[in-house]
Amino acid sequence: MRVYLDNAATTAMDDRVIEAMIPFMKEHYGNPSSVHTHGREVRTAIERSRKKVAELLNASPSEIFFTSGGTEADNTALVCGIDRHSIKHVITSPIEHHAVLHTLEECAKKGHVKLSMVEVNEAGEISMDHLRTLLQSGDKAMVSIMHANNEVGNINDLHEIGAIAYEKGAFVHSDTVQTMGHYVHDVKQMSVDALVGAAHKFHGPKGAGFLYVRKEKKILPLIHGGAQERNMRGGTENVIGIIGLAKALELAYEDMSGHRLHIEALKKHMKEKLIQEIPGVTFNGLSGDLDKSLYTVLNVSLPPSEENSGMLLFNLDLHGISASGGSACSSGATVGSHVLRTLGHTAERDAVRFSFSRFNTIEEIDYTVEKLKELYPVEV
Amino acid sequence: MRVYLDNAATTAMDDRVIEAMIPFMKEHYGNPSSVHTHGREVRTAIERSRKKVAELLNASPSEIFFTSGGTEADNTALVCGIDRHSIKHVITSPIEHHAVLHTLEECAKKGHVKLSMVEVNEAGEISMDHLRTLLQSGDKAMVSIMHANNEVGNINDLHEIGAIAYEKGAFVHSDTVQTMGHYVHDVKQMSVDALVGAAHKFHGPKGAGFLYVRKEKKILPLIHGGAQERNMRGGTENVIGIIGLAKALELAYEDMSGHRLHIEALKKHMKEKLIQEIPGVTFNGLSGDLDKSLYTVLNVSLPPSEENSGMLLFNLDLHGISASGGSACSSGATVGSHVLRTLGHTAERDAVRFSFSRFNTIEEIDYTVEKLKELYPVEV
Ligand SMILES: Cc1ncc(COP(=O)(O)O)c(C=O)c1O
Ligand SMILES: Cc1ncc(COP(=O)(O)O)c(C=O)c1O
Repeated sequence: MRVYLDNAATTAMDDRVIEAMIPFMKEHYGNPSSVHTHGREVRTAIERSRKKVAELLNASPSEIFFTSGGTEADNTALVCGIDRHSIKHVITSPIEHHAVLHTLEECAKKGHVKLSMVEVNEAGEISMDHLRTLLQSGDKAMVSIMHANNEVGNINDLHEIGAIAYEKGAFVHSDTVQTMGHYVHDVKQMSVDALVGAAHKFHGPKGAGFLYVRKEKKILPLIHGGAQERNMRGGTENVIGIIGLAKALELAYEDMSGHRLHIEALKKHMKEKLIQEIPGVTFNGLSGDLDKSLYTVLNVSLPPSEENSGMLLFNLDLHGISASGGSACSSGATVGSHVLRTLGHTAERDAVRFSFSRFNTIEEIDYTVEKLKELYPVEV
Repeated sequence: MRVYLDNAATTAMDDRVIEAMIPFMKEHYGNPSSVHTHGREVRTAIERSRKKVAELLNASPSEIFFTSGGTEADNTALVCGIDRHSIKHVITSPIEHHAVLHTLEECAKKGHVKLSMVEVNEAGEISMDHLRTLLQSGDKAMVSIMHANNEVGNINDLHEIGAIAYEKGAFVHSDTVQTMGHYVHDVKQMSVDALVGAAHKFHGPKGAGFLYVRKEKKILPLIHGGAQERNMRGGTENVIGIIGLAKALELAYEDMSGHRLHIEALKKHMKEKLIQEIPGVTFNGLSGDLDKSLYTVLNVSLPPSEENSGMLLFNLDLHGISASGGSACSSGATVGSHVLRTLGHTAERDAVRFSFSRFNTIEEIDYTVEKLKELYPVEV
């Protein structure tokens, strides 16, 4: 049995997404910037995709820009947001994805901004009081706090964060890569200026993402060249990626509550079985709290075990189970997770992130718990 | 009949490229950064692709970085080359693609570098004397001159340019988007530090490109995030794009001289027939010179005609022929071409770029010339 429980790293593509892409590999190959028939038919498809994404987010098509993924979208929002809006002070959290952390560290190193880290407790919860304090400085500020953490699944209250930041006139960016396609985003109801998505997290292709930027908070491009993406990003478009992204997001919204019900049941089942079968098991961050964490992520902390120490992922893989340690979004996975470190997780216990999709089944969960039970036998 | 003669804008994908990509849409969906089986099989395929591209260029795999296209590759080489090598003075040409020109203008605007334009004559030929003069300044310099122009097809002597620049210790970048996959590049024989490719110009997918950077001239990333691409570019890889790019480049090299023979014959045939059928026709830049221009591009200057003025591309399209005016690489095509303007082409005459691929036939060329002849009847 091969079981894929690493859906926060990436997901399998939906067959209907592949079907939507293939005509743009075979028949419709024009350059969307060309004015002739070959070009115009592709341009039309791209603009239809943009319109679809915009509709789903309750945004305007002119606020949606396609990128090469979540990382480029984050980089653009941050680097170009800082530049365009003369930001002097950026407030972020220590448990952001590297797409945000490394980018901001680079901006700080170059002397463009002062960087502040909002405090988080051992569960990874943001201190709203500290956020308020940091915003007192008076400098033109940007707040960049992720919607949900990719490792422990914690969901931050974007409404509260946005409200606090807007009160001080800050530019608000949120890395929404882990919630896009799994939760509804209605930009008209949100106090956020920039948010992002990565198609491969919701059964679309890798290497395709998008950036939403609120009309009133326009920014300039990160990648310069032709007039593509309404002058916001030079470069011939990843046409099949864009088509696939829009189709995948459409499918995600079409039956979001159905998917959620299914996946939430898997997570709940796994959590309960683990508690039952493995004494001493705990859950990292808020991932054990079904209301405060992604329904797609369960980050498990296993009791100390000499046999498995540092070998758990390897042992699971031998049993055909794919899961992740720290963040699997980068090859630096082996250097350990900055998120778990921040949360005070010690090397004594092994941590493993199981993450689910609508393609997983109860049988796969049972199989996985059974194997974990074999790896962590109860002493008698 | 629909005839596609806009292959310098983009090309149709080769069926064998599509076949190579599809398993990575359907079966192999792991994240290449994941350490489990699902991830490792994809990682292996990416590294095999990198090795293939490196082999074809006689480079080392550690010198090849995959990007979202030619534009991002150019941006990275320029912005990060300037930064990493403390460049103070950049010398480029006025007929570069916007991916180079706009990026450098941006760097100059921000005060990072002084920007100089090397002189070109009315045929678009670079003045090597002027290049030498500009390099006298003594500032740490970068030379960025394209290998071949995408509009008029002029091929620049990269060996001479590289030699002149290397003598002064300059960092040398060349936009090789139009020659990659059509001419052999052997980096060991070249005096160039950075060159680029875009898969969609040689029958691969759009939105996938690569950057070669010479080992001794390492640069840092443009897009920050995970440790992908050996820490040179954050972001989950466009897996299918990379697989497609490598396959397309492999196929391009496999029978490059065969393709060249076929395409060169088409260009020669078209040129001769046009001279025969349309009195007053001329060719822009060096595109009429088969030895000094791309065999894939013929840029035609048509005699003044009230009926066609400004409508030529539209009229051709009505006859089912896709060709390009200025650069079709950007939606700014309608604002007119900065290249033709530099070469002194006046609005009195219409210019049209026909560009060929191995999928074109003599019949398509004959059909196109016939339609042009109807649009430009000889007065009797
Ligand atoms: C000479 C040249 N440079 C750069 C590019 C940009 O490449 P891409 O469209 O893949 O970003 C193109 C074509 O679009 C080109 O012809
Ligand atoms: C929270 C978060 N942000 C950003 C990213 C980066 O997205 P991408 O891999 O598409 O560049 C990821 C996943 O990789 C993520 O989980």
